[in-house]
Amino acid sequence: MPIPDDNTLEESPLLVDLYQLTMLQSYLDQQMLEEAVFEFFVRRIPENRNFLLFAGLEQLLAFLERTRFSQGELDYLARTGLFRRNLIDYLAGFRFSGSVHAMPEGTLCFSNEPIVRITAPLPEAQLIETRLINLLQFQTLIATKAARCRIAAPDAKLVDFGLRRAHGAEAGLLAARACYLGGFDGTANVLAGLHYAVPILGTMAHAYIQAHDNEMEAFRHFADSQPNNLILLIDTYDTDRGAHRAAELADTLLPKGVVVKGVRIDSGEPGEEAFRVRRILDQAGHPEITIFASSNLDEQLLQKLVRRGAPIDGYGIGTSLTTSSDAPFLNCAYKLQEYAGIPRRKRSSGKATWPGRKQLYRYLDSRGKIEYDWLCRETETTMDATPLLEPVMHNGCRLTPPEAPADIRHRVQQQIGTLPDSLLSLEPAPPLPLRISARLQQLAQDTDRRFNR
Amino acid sequence: MPIPDDNTLEESPLLVDLYQLTMLQSYLDQQMLEEAVFEFFVRRIPENRNFLLFAGLEQLLAFLERTRFSQGELDYLARTGLFRRNLIDYLAGFRFSGSVHAMPEGTLCFSNEPIVRITAPLPEAQLIETRLINLLQFQTLIATKAARCRIAAPDAKLVDFGLRRAHGAEAGLLAARACYLGGFDGTANVLAGLHYAVPILGTMAHAYIQAHDNEMEAFRHFADSQPNNLILLIDTYDTDRGAHRAAELADTLLPKGVVVKGVRIDSGEPGEEAFRVRRILDQAGHPEITIFASSNLDEQLLQKLVRRGAPIDGYGIGTSLTTSSDAPFLNCAYKLQEYAGIPRRKRSSGKATWPGRKQLYRYLDSRGKIEYDWLCRETETTMDATPLLEPVMHNGCRLTPPEAPADIRHRVQQQIGTLPDSLLSLEPAPPLPLRISARLQQLAQDTDRRFNR
Repeated sequence: MPIPDDNTLEESPLLVDLYQLTMLQSYLDQQMLEEAVFEFFVRRIPENRNFLLFAGLEQLLAFLERTRFSQGELDYLARTGLFRRNLIDYLAGFRFSGSVHAMPEGTLCFSNEPIVRITAPLPEAQLIETRLINLLQFQTLIATKAARCRIAAPDAKLVDFGLRRAHGAEAGLLAARACYLGGFDGTANVLAGLHYAVPILGTMAHAYIQAHDNEMEAFRHFADSQPNNLILLIDTYDTDRGAHRAAELADTLLPKGVVVKGVRIDSGEPGEEAFRVRRILDQAGHPEITIFASSNLDEQLLQKLVRRGAPIDGYGIGTSLTTSSDAPFLNCAYKLQEYAGIPRRKRSSGKATWPGRKQLYRYLDSRGKIEYDWLCRETETTMDATPLLEPVMHNGCRLTPPEAPADIRHRVQQQIGTLPDSLLSLEPAPPLPLRISARLQQLAQDTDRRFNR
Repeated sequence: MPIPDDNTLEESPLLVDLYQLTMLQSYLDQQMLEEAVFEFFVRRIPENRNFLLFAGLEQLLAFLERTRFSQGELDYLARTGLFRRNLIDYLAGFRFSGSVHAMPEGTLCFSNEPIVRITAPLPEAQLIETRLINLLQFQTLIATKAARCRIAAPDAKLVDFGLRRAHGAEAGLLAARACYLGGFDGTANVLAGLHYAVPILGTMAHAYIQAHDNEMEAFRHFADSQPNNLILLIDTYDTDRGAHRAAELADTLLPKGVVVKGVRIDSGEPGEEAFRVRRILDQAGHPEITIFASSNLDEQLLQKLVRRGAPIDGYGIGTSLTTSSDAPFLNCAYKLQEYAGIPRRKRSSGKATWPGRKQLYRYLDSRGKIEYDWLCRETETTMDATPLLEPVMHNGCRLTPPEAPADIRHRVQQQIGTLPDSLLSLEPAPPLPLRISARLQQLAQDTDRRFNR
C-alpha cells in the first residue's frame, strides 16, 4: 500500500493526542499487540438534555477506512526525537484492521451506554481514540439540539443558518448534516448540499439591501434574478415599511407569474414583529406570503413562539444550533474494556466503568415507549428486545454501504416517537432507568479483585 | 488560472451560505460591481469576558489567497438550477482581488470595534463573509479563553488537552494554535506541532495502565520506551498507591540516569489530591517530581487552586478551552459600511452599526494601561495614539509574510500588560469606554437621512 504524499486535515492520523503515540511506542517495544476492546459512551448526558441522538458514525467509518500516515507526517514524527524507528515503520504500514459495533446513527442514547465498540489490535484501537471522540461527540451534540428544535416546533420549516459561527470548516459542514438528521428541513450551507444532499435554502442579507439606493429597488432586483426563490428581508431600515413594500411588490409581480414566497425578519422580538407583519400582509391581501424569522433563536424561544401562536412559518436557527451553545460538549469517553481476552476497567474516582464487551437492549412498553435500557455482557441475550449494537465494520471493511442522510432522518423521527412524554420535555426530567445485568455486576467485582494490586 | 480538480474543505469557497450566491447572481445581473467596504466586529463581547484577543487573521489571509471554485463545485452549482450561466462563469474565474486592513493577531479588542476591514468589488467582498466570520470568531474565542487561563495561573505549565472534544478537525487544530497564542506552553495535538510548531506534550492514558497486568509493570515499561518524557498517570486504581509507586520507580531508575519528571492526576478534586500526593512524594525523598493535573479544569478552577496554594506545577486544560464552553460563540458580524463611495449602515433594532470606513485608536494612561478606545472615520488622525487597523493585503496579495505564532504569543503578553486591573479580573467588570468621533456621529446622521426612504 503506497504512502500518501499528503493528507487532508480530516483524514490525517496525526490529528491525535501525543500520548497515543508515546503509548504506541511502548506497546511495540513490549510486543503488546493483542486484541483490545474499547467502548465509546457518554458518562452523563448534559443536565439540560433528556436524551441524545447518536450521529457521526458514517464519518468515523470513512475515517477508519481511509486514514494513513503521509510521508511528511512520518518525517515529522521522526524529527521530534520522541520515537524509535520501530514505531515509525509501524506507522508507515498502519491501516485500521479492526471491527466496529455501533448503534445505528439516529438512535436515542443515554448515560453510560456503549454507543460504539472497537475491537482491534491494541495499538490500532488506541491510535484512533482522539479522532473517534472528536467525530462522534460533535454530530451527536448537534443532532440532539436539532431534534429539540423539532420537538419545540413540529410543523415549522427549520433551516440551519449556523455555518458562520460553527467552530471551523468541518464543524460547519457536519453540523448541517447532523441538524438534517435531527429533523431540520435544510441548511444555508451550500457545501452540505453537495456533500450530503441536504436541501439548501437562502435569500439575501442586509448588505444586499444596503448596497442599493433604496429598499424597493433591491427587492425588485432580487425578483429579477431569483424569481423562484423570492423571500424578502424586510427589517433593514423599518420592518413595517418593508412589509408594505413586499405586499406592493407581490401585486406588481403577479401579472408576470412571479410569486413573493415570504418575508424574513432578522431583528427585534420575533413574535411581536411577526404579528404586526402578518397583519400588514393580510390587510394588503397577501395571506399567502409566509413569514420567516431568524436571529438568536433556540428551542426554548421556538417553543414560546409556537405556544403563543406567533404567525411564523419558518425559522432560521444559527449559532445556538451549530455550537450547541447551552451544552457545547458531552462528558464522553472511549475506554479500554478488555485486553488479551481479559476484561478491564478504570476505577478512578467518579469515572469508574463497567468492564468487558457489552451489549445494550431497549425495552418498550405496550404503547411503544421506552421503559428502560438493559446493559449486559456481550454474550448475554434476551428474547424480549433487540440488541442496539450491531456489527458495521469487520477487518477494517464496512459491512454495509453508507446510509442516506434522509434514511437516518427518518429513523430519528421513529426514535423520537419512542420517547416517553417526560423525556420529550425541553425541561430536565428524571433520567431513563439503566438496568445492569447480574452477570455484568459480577464481572465488575471479579475484575476489581484481579486488578487490586 | 487553471480551475482546481478538487478543494480541501478548508479552502472551498462553497463553504458558504446560499444567500451569498443568490445575492451575487443579482449583483452580476445588475452590474453592481463597484467597490464595497465591509467590517468585521463584535457587537457585544460576552458578559463573562472583559476583553477579547483577536486571532485567526493568518488563516483568513491564507484562505483569501488560495480559495478558488473547483470544477466539481461549479458543476454542482449549475445543477442546482438556482443560477444562470453568467454567475457560474464569474465564479469559475473568481479570486479575491481586494484589500484587507486588520488589527495584528493577538491585539486586544472590545465591543463594536472594527477588527478587520475588507475593501473589494461587491461580489467578492460579499462571497467571503461566511468563511471570514467562521475563521475569525473561533480562534478569537479560544485565544481569549487561553489568556484567561494564563491570567489565573501565571506561573504554571499550561497544556491544551482539548482536541478530542473540539468541534471537528479544524477546530481541534486551530484551537491548539490559538491557545498557544493566548499564553499556553503547548498542546497534546500532534498535528499542531507539525503545522504551527506549537510544542507538543503528552504521556499516557488510563488504557495504558489497564492494558498491563499491574500498574508498576506499566510504569516500568513506559520508562523503558520514553525515558526522557516520564510523567506517570497515577490515578487509575488508587492515587496514593500510584504516588508511592512513582517514588519507588524514581529510586530504581536513578542509577540508570533516568528521571521521573512528574505524575499526573486526572480525577477527584485536584487540590486535595495534589496536597496528598505532594506529601507522599516529598516524604519519599522526591521533591523534584512535579505534579500535573487534568480533568474538567477551567480558568475559574485554576484560579481557586492557585490561590489556595495547591502544589500543582502544570495543568492540562481540555474541553472548556477548545469549546470555550462558558462562551461558545461571539455576537460578531461582518457588515457593509460603504458601497460605490457612499457610506451605509443597517438600522435594524438592536443591530445598528456606525457607517463608513473606520479606524480605531487606543489611548494609554501614563502607566501604559488602556484608558479608552476612539472610533473615528478612516480619514481622521490623531497625534496621541497609533491606529490599530493596518493594511495587510492589497490586490489579493499579502503585504507581509505570515507571523510566527511565537511572535504573536509575545504580542499577547505585551497586550495583556496594558489591561487595567479591573479588566484583568475573571469576573465581569464595567466595559472599557469606546468614544465615537464627532465626525463619525455626523456621518451616521447624514447616512440615515440619505437612506430614509
